[in-house]
This record gives sequence, structure tokens and C-alpha cells, in this order.
Amino acid sequence: MRAIDIIRRKRDGHTLTRAEIAAFVRGATDGSWADYQLAAMLMAICCRGMDAGERAALTAEMVNSGQRLDLSDIPGPKVDKHSTGGVGDKTSLILAPLAAACGVRVPMASGRGLGHSGGTLDKLESIPGFRVNLSVEEIKYALRTVGAALISQTREVAPADRVLYALRDVTGTVESIPLITASILSKKIAEGISGLVMDVKTGKGAFMAARDEARELARALVEVGNANGVHTEAVITDMNAPLGRAVGNAAEVVESIEVMRGERPGPLEDLSVHLAARMVRLAGLASTLEEAEKKVRAALSSGRGLEKFRDILVNQGGDPTVIDNPARLPRATHRHIVRASRRGHVRGIHAGHVGRGSMLLGAGRNRADEAIDPAVAVLLHVALGHPVSPGDALCELHYNDPSRLAAALELIEAAFEIHEEPPGTVPTSLILETLG
Amino acid sequence: MRAIDIIRRKRDGHTLTRAEIAAFVRGATDGSWADYQLAAMLMAICCRGMDAGERAALTAEMVNSGQRLDLSDIPGPKVDKHSTGGVGDKTSLILAPLAAACGVRVPMASGRGLGHSGGTLDKLESIPGFRVNLSVEEIKYALRTVGAALISQTREVAPADRVLYALRDVTGTVESIPLITASILSKKIAEGISGLVMDVKTGKGAFMAARDEARELARALVEVGNANGVHTEAVITDMNAPLGRAVGNAAEVVESIEVMRGERPGPLEDLSVHLAARMVRLAGLASTLEEAEKKVRAALSSGRGLEKFRDILVNQGGDPTVIDNPARLPRATHRHIVRASRRGHVRGIHAGHVGRGSMLLGAGRNRADEAIDPAVAVLLHVALGHPVSPGDALCELHYNDPSRLAAALELIEAAFEIHEEPPGTVPTSLILETLG
Repeated sequence: MRAIDIIRRKRDGHTLTRAEIAAFVRGATDGSWADYQLAAMLMAICCRGMDAGERAALTAEMVNSGQRLDLSDIPGPKVDKHSTGGVGDKTSLILAPLAAACGVRVPMASGRGLGHSGGTLDKLESIPGFRVNLSVEEIKYALRTVGAALISQTREVAPADRVLYALRDVTGTVESIPLITASILSKKIAEGISGLVMDVKTGKGAFMAARDEARELARALVEVGNANGVHTEAVITDMNAPLGRAVGNAAEVVESIEVMRGERPGPLEDLSVHLAARMVRLAGLASTLEEAEKKVRAALSSGRGLEKFRDILVNQGGDPTVIDNPARLPRATHRHIVRASRRGHVRGIHAGHVGRGSMLLGAGRNRADEAIDPAVAVLLHVALGHPVSPGDALCELHYNDPSRLAAALELIEAAFEIHEEPPGTVPTSLILETLG
Repeated sequence: MRAIDIIRRKRDGHTLTRAEIAAFVRGATDGSWADYQLAAMLMAICCRGMDAGERAALTAEMVNSGQRLDLSDIPGPKVDKHSTGGVGDKTSLILAPLAAACGVRVPMASGRGLGHSGGTLDKLESIPGFRVNLSVEEIKYALRTVGAALISQTREVAPADRVLYALRDVTGTVESIPLITASILSKKIAEGISGLVMDVKTGKGAFMAARDEARELARALVEVGNANGVHTEAVITDMNAPLGRAVGNAAEVVESIEVMRGERPGPLEDLSVHLAARMVRLAGLASTLEEAEKKVRAALSSGRGLEKFRDILVNQGGDPTVIDNPARLPRATHRHIVRASRRGHVRGIHAGHVGRGSMLLGAGRNRADEAIDPAVAVLLHVALGHPVSPGDALCELHYNDPSRLAAALELIEAAFEIHEEPPGTVPTSLILETLG
């Protein structure tokens, strides 16, 4: 089976066979297809699409390209949550302990931030000593004892995805439902999970800005996940404004701890509880979502969630005293307050601008090999619908490198949309749709 | 202007600007775009197409990527003919001398054979001593004195096409009207011509097997040629059966000489005369096609065409005695006669099979770096519509390497379609449509 024949079939809009898809993935993994052949195939997939069977096969073959965690000796269902990426999205830090506190086993392999969106690993690593590279034995130990392992994806998992993702990034082939679906799910399925809750973000700070694209991706994720034996649900959530008040790695850890303490009721807490509840139900620990939410709320209000977070830190080498003393987390030397220049109401806080602004300050990276500064933060002082007067603080920037301020400020100031008229109604929930 | 942004625009079906197309072609020429980015762009063009303006711009930028012959000091219009490739297509060898004998200046840069289709350069090089690599000064001398230069495309002409063609060949992106058009015309326009006759082949031995695809390509060639200041006409011709009776390099030279001697009236002579007549009219040496055909016929019947061929050989170092003594051309040591096994009528001679069979015998190459054997030939003993009886010779194979016979025979035997019933009517002309 020659690469060129398979490429031509997809170019002409045909449905590829399982064997053809396997040859493509093997070609990426063992280098038997040249980069330019892989690139041509990726573009053909972008342009011609893939049907449900092809998507499921592509995902399965990408799982098969590497190691798959065998968690069969860990009792009980293993359930994870994954987000398509946003700004200020620290729900993983909150819901993993909450779900584990309810009895779910959570083998959560995360990625790093790229571009305007943050990554769970970067947030965790702002905690002194926290180790994300656990061995298989350490992961199993964590799941058996603490109930959660917050880890990095290893090089042994879905190596085809690593090759293909690097190529997609430089060939304009990132935006493709089948390719995104296979990339996300191959790494999740390789965790050895039986259930998965997908948080598909949509809006100005999301990868899928348009609602219908987010819906199409959510459908594909649910379909392909289930086709590969992982019970998958998806929630489409609003990512027009940053999630919560903090954007930046250490600052998001602090906000997560505040939520787990019950000190920050609101959309972030609600979304974290909802996603955790879905995990609880997928794990079979509740028969309805209402019952599951009650369990999660109880874990939150009783402090068992926060205690579970402490256990996770201790188990993975992180300094647990940051929970009671956030000042032990990295702190920036400079502050700048962004103030309102006119009277009005906050009608929008552009998550994309805030994300890119925080990246420019040092919180994120443009390329995968760049270093980040965990202390950099944007702390919002206002939320949607708030009235403001000239001089009121809109947000506070924490940074170490003053040379980066001007470019970041330009974006962050532009993020705030202040109208004279108050908004009609501010939606209280970030959850737009649920699937599966 | 980043490669990835231009690729994404084409991926999403947008019309590229002239500057974007220029950046792509420059990226291919100077290596500033990686192979995988070029491949992704080529596939996006395959899938999304290009409009008339984009095609003209792509062609113009590919011309600009290298040298363009400046023939302004050669008096009179310079006109060429180009074919999209076929089996047994030796019209160039016949019409270049005929057109030159009528006063047309013919700067004809040709390619080599690849796959089942032959190349004019390979045919010319079967003539002992014939040089196809002329310097610019030699080309100009040939045009001034003899009136025709039969040369190879130099490395300085359209280097972007060389890079892109090599990539297209291995990435399944050959079959694309805009890419084919730009590839063909950039090299022709760089010859410094003012007129061009395109012979677009269709049928079982053609690159564009389907008639509607051939028509689409012909239209694109006429449109893009004219948009770039070269008066371009196209003729769509039948390539279901081999053209003439000989397939193979030296054998096709012999048949061409026989046609120029007036010894082989028939479709090959008629097509050669028709194409030459179009060149004469494009050169302004006749006002109607009828008048032009008369002039070409006169050059043929008077022997001035053959004399012009002799002059071309002498001027380019070829042995002119081959004209009177074809035995001086390379001859193969082995013969094999393919015979009819049943009674009936020849309803088809599959040009693709004959072409691939002759290639397997050594007349052609599968990869651009393979050597060919100029003596290998398939000589047809029957034509369409002929009645045959069991044992009648269908064709004769000439070859030097007996180990290649079996595989070639399988294809060549399968090429002959013998039906009991005689065919309704056998078309006498190969010309199906004309454009421009």
C-alpha cells in the first residue's frame, strides 16, 4: 500500500479503509512516510473531512501507535475530564480533587499552555516541588491511594500524535474536526479510562470561536470516544470572558484553593461542580446528575475536596503549605492597575485578548520550547455587568519584566468593553449545551 | 507574510492575492518554505482550486522564478507546440521542421518521457550525436539560421516548477488543473514565444483520460497563456490508441522521417500538418487555417520539411545520414511477434498498455533518473478496424533484455481488443475539439 495512493484517495474525497488509516499513522510513527507526504495527507483530511468510521479508526490507530496504560488492576471506573483550552480555566485543579473525594479514580494527563490558552501542567508546576512526570507504578499507586494522578503526557503515549501535531502546527492543518478529535482522544483513551467528560469551549478565548464548530467538535468527540469504548459526554461552555478572576499560573492555583474553600461561589465553582458531578455519574457513583451534584457539593462544603487536593500535592512532591500560605507560591515584583477611563457597565472581557496579554507578560508561551514565568498574572477586579466609574480598577497585572508591559497592556486594555447602558441580563451559567 | 497564513487561506477556499502567490513560488525557489509547507499548499490547491486570476498569477510567478529567453533580437514571431503527453506521439519531430520550412521560428524546449508516455528529448537523443543542451547563443543562432531549435529545458528555466513538480510527484498532487497549467505554461512562456499550440491528449493513453477534464485543462491553458501575453490555441486529440505505428525512441524517429517523406499518409500525418498549420497561422504567415494547411502540405510534399529536419540535425550535431539510412539508428537484438489468437476486427489498441509495455521493455522510465534503451520498440502491424485471423501479426516487439519480455507481453497482449463484429465507423481524424 503506497503512501501516494492513500493520499490520492483522500484527496478525491473517498472514505479510507482501516488498513489505509493504519498505514498513514504507522507512516507518521516509524517515519516511513516523508514529512511532505504526511503534510499532504493532513491537508487532504482538512479539505475532504472524514466520516464517523474513519475518525474512530484514526483515533484508535493513534492510540495503538504507543503505550496504553493498563489500569485493570485498579478497582473501579477511571474517569477523566478534558477541556479544549481556554483562558483562566483552572477547573481541572478543582474538580480532580472533588471527584476523587467522591470516590472516582482520576488518571488525568494534561498538557502545557500554548498561545493564549493556559495548561494545567504549568499551573501545577508553579507549586514548589510538584512532580508531573510519574512512572506507571507511581500513577497506579496514586490512583489506589489518593484516587487521582495529575500527570504529563509521556512520550510513549500516542507518538503519532506528536509527529502529526508538530506538522499540523506549521502547515495550516490544525483546524480540522477529525484531526482535533483524534489528537485529543488518542491521548485520553491511552490513559486507560472508562469514562470522559469533555469541556468544549466556545467564544472569544476558545480555539473553536464559533458555536456551531464547537458543537460539531463536541459531537465528534462523543461519537469517537464511545466508538472506542470510552463512555464520553461533552459540555459546551462559554469562553468569551476569562473563567474566574485569575489568569496566570500561580494565581490560578490560589483561586482554585479559594474555590475549594468555598470562598468563591459563582460560575467557576458551578462549572467545576457540574463537570465533577458528570465524572461521578460516569463512574457509576450516582444514578442521576442531581444526586451526583449533591455528592460533589458535599465534598466541597465539607472541605474533603481541599483535603484531597492536599493529599495530591503531598503524593506528588508538591509543597502542601501553599494551601494555607499562598505567599509561598511565586510572586511577581511589579504591579500595574488597569483603570476604567469612562463611566458605564462591563459588557465584555475579551478572553483572547486577556490570554494573549498574559502570555506577552510571560505567563504563557508562543512556541512549545519557551519558558514561562509562573508569577505573572492578570487579576480581574470586575465581572460582566458590573458598573464602573472613571478611575475604578478593572484589573491588576503582576509581572517581573517591565519591558513586556507596554505590549501586554495594549491588548488587556482593549479586552474591556464598557458600555453606557447596562447589559440586559448576564447569564449566570457558563454551560451552553450538553451532549451524551 | 507567513507561509502558514497563506496555506490556511487557500485551505479555506479563499482567492489568493498576487503577493501571496509570489510568496509561495519564492518559498519553493529559495527554500524559505519547508517541503511539508509546500506539500500542504499543493494539496490545498488540489482540493480548493484556483480561479483564472490565480492561475495566471501562479504561472507568471513561476516564469519569474527563473530565466526567460529574450528572443527580441530574432525577427518574426516565435511559435511552439506542446503536447500533454501520449504514446507514440512524435508530432514534434515532424511539425517543427514543417513549420520552420514555412518560416516560423520554433524554439521548442521539450522534456523526457516518464511513465507510459514518451518524451521528445529521448527520441531526438536516439540520433547519434544529437545535442539537446544548447547555450542561449546557440539557440539564437539556430533560430536565425535553421529556424528551429529542439532543446531541453534548462535548470535556469522555472526552477520553482522543478521543486514543485518533484513534490507533486510524491504527494499525490499531480492531478490539478491550476498546477498542471502553471507547470506546462511557465516553461513554455520562458522560451520567449509569442504563440503556442497546445495538443491536449485525452483517452486511455493520456494523462487526462476523461474528455471533460481534458477540455477543462485546454480551456485553462488557452486562458492562462493569453493572460500572460502568449497567443495560445488548444486542440483536444484522441489518445486511446498509440499515435502512428511505432512506439519507442529510434523507431519513432524512423516513422517521423517516413511521414516527412510522404510515405505514411494517415491520422499521424494529418495531425502533424494541422498542428503545424496552426503554428503558421499564429505566426501571421497565413490568415486562415486553410491557407496555412496548404503551405504546410506544400512543405511536406516538396520535401522542404525533410530538408529542414536534415538542417536541424546538422546544426545540433546529429548524424544526418540516419535520414537515408535508418539502420544507423540503435537497433535491438531480439524480436517477438504478438499474434492474434482469434478471428475478428481490431476495435481498440490500448495506448496506456502499449506505453507501459514498451516502458517495461526499456523504452521508458518509471523514475526520472532511470536510463532508457533507444532501440526498444513496439511496431504495430494493425490499425483500428482492421480484420484479423488467428496467427496474424498484431505487433512486433524489439528489445535487448529478454528478462523484461514476459511482463511487457502481458500488458501489450492485453492492449488489443478484438471483436467479432467490425466497428461501426472508425474516425479518420484524431482531432476532437479545438479551442482559441
